[in-house]
Amino acid sequence: MDASRPIGVFDSGIGGLTVVRALMERLPLESIVYFGDTARVPYGLKSVATIEQFTGQIVDELMRRQVKMLIVACNTMAAVASATVAARACGVPVLDVIEAGALAAVEESPRGRVGVLGTPTTINSNAYARRIHRLDPALRVVSQACPLFVPLVEEGWLDHPVTRLTAQEYLRPVMAEDVDTLVLGCTHYPLLKPLLKEVAGEGVRLVDSAITTAELAARRLAELNLASTGECTADYRFVVTDVPLRFQTIGERFLGRSLGSVERLEW
Amino acid sequence: MDASRPIGVFDSGIGGLTVVRALMERLPLESIVYFGDTARVPYGLKSVATIEQFTGQIVDELMRRQVKMLIVACNTMAAVASATVAARACGVPVLDVIEAGALAAVEESPRGRVGVLGTPTTINSNAYARRIHRLDPALRVVSQACPLFVPLVEEGWLDHPVTRLTAQEYLRPVMAEDVDTLVLGCTHYPLLKPLLKEVAGEGVRLVDSAITTAELAARRLAELNLASTGECTADYRFVVTDVPLRFQTIGERFLGRSLGSVERLEW
Repeated sequence: MDASRPIGVFDSGIGGLTVVRALMERLPLESIVYFGDTARVPYGLKSVATIEQFTGQIVDELMRRQVKMLIVACNTMAAVASATVAARACGVPVLDVIEAGALAAVEESPRGRVGVLGTPTTINSNAYARRIHRLDPALRVVSQACPLFVPLVEEGWLDHPVTRLTAQEYLRPVMAEDVDTLVLGCTHYPLLKPLLKEVAGEGVRLVDSAITTAELAARRLAELNLASTGECTADYRFVVTDVPLRFQTIGERFLGRSLGSVERLEW
Repeated sequence: MDASRPIGVFDSGIGGLTVVRALMERLPLESIVYFGDTARVPYGLKSVATIEQFTGQIVDELMRRQVKMLIVACNTMAAVASATVAARACGVPVLDVIEAGALAAVEESPRGRVGVLGTPTTINSNAYARRIHRLDPALRVVSQACPLFVPLVEEGWLDHPVTRLTAQEYLRPVMAEDVDTLVLGCTHYPLLKPLLKEVAGEGVRLVDSAITTAELAARRLAELNLASTGECTADYRFVVTDVPLRFQTIGERFLGRSLGSVERLEW
């Protein structure tokens, strides 16, 4: 496979841009095609059958664009549709945010007590607990669905009394289990890191799956001899199914820089 | 046209069931086909082009099911895609929640100072203000987007400190304009009526567009000689594009009774 090909990163919406941001910092020579299904976002409350159908369509589109690696930047898709991704990837290496987050949780938890925060579908799938237990069956895992975090982030209320109160409510049962590590199991949540750090308290580590995914991608590309040699300038493409109101503003909040040109695909 | 045909009611998701509930109470002899695009909900943050495309697909589906009237139970579609609905309705009468809400606001406001609450797309479209001013150009209209109300209702936090704090924040600029009437410009909002009444204070009237839409439908059916004579028992069908987690629970919260059988259409 040609190492100059782009990495394909996909998400149900724009949250996966936090993963793109981490990839740009960790792997500045790599080109990236980002696909966000903004016309059908959010996936976090949809059924497994529908998520599998949508995931298959996205993977097919990225395969047509000849990516050298697929990164599932959406926790919900990683949680319930990883078999669909694998089946359609035709041998292209795949990694996802849950794999990366589970690995980091196991490596970082000092006392083996891990809390996982995510969308209802991610939490109901139990995917984090299963992946963590595959790495270390002795770890204690407590999960909590936080359906309001995504809309709060999109509203821009990153440090707002409403968000603080919501976080206190969601974290109460998790902290009661005396966890030492909290996995941010949704690509929107890294934007709430300062607030969650405060609510969870000093002693608790936060695992940001965007950063851990970029680490894992770097490792995997090196192992497979697929890392870009930097002969061409890194190229970034953003493909979405809808360009909604405030898209640039919200997108740039996630990416941490200007989005440049965005292609809208009409499905 | 055959008066025994069903009324077609549609929404981006399940919020439109508040309109179905009001129709069942006001027009117990009428059969109803409800269409909820649960696979692509919510529409409130999508672009106009995408909303028009989705709306056209829904209207075509309901026309195939031979409805005698179309009710747009989604404020967002009514706000930005009413031309699409009219073009595809092939002469079948159409009414929508914005028309009904605007009419009720004009009739009910004692001092002509109206606040409108809705999703960002509805508010940005300025559709309520335009329809209200068509009826009475002298009315003062203040609009406020409330993007967190839908997720709060779906979380079931109908009387929760987080919801109260959010409502206080959204209503502050509206109440500062001394409004006497508040239009609930989204089908999810009627579930927040008790809380909004409290936050807005005693003197403010709330216009629930579900109830006013059922009133307007009754009036229009009578005028057009299309009211059911009750020869057959009223039949209720629910068609959705996805059956997500907790669908029955949330659906019944909106409908106020059991949903019965639900048909999933795979698009």
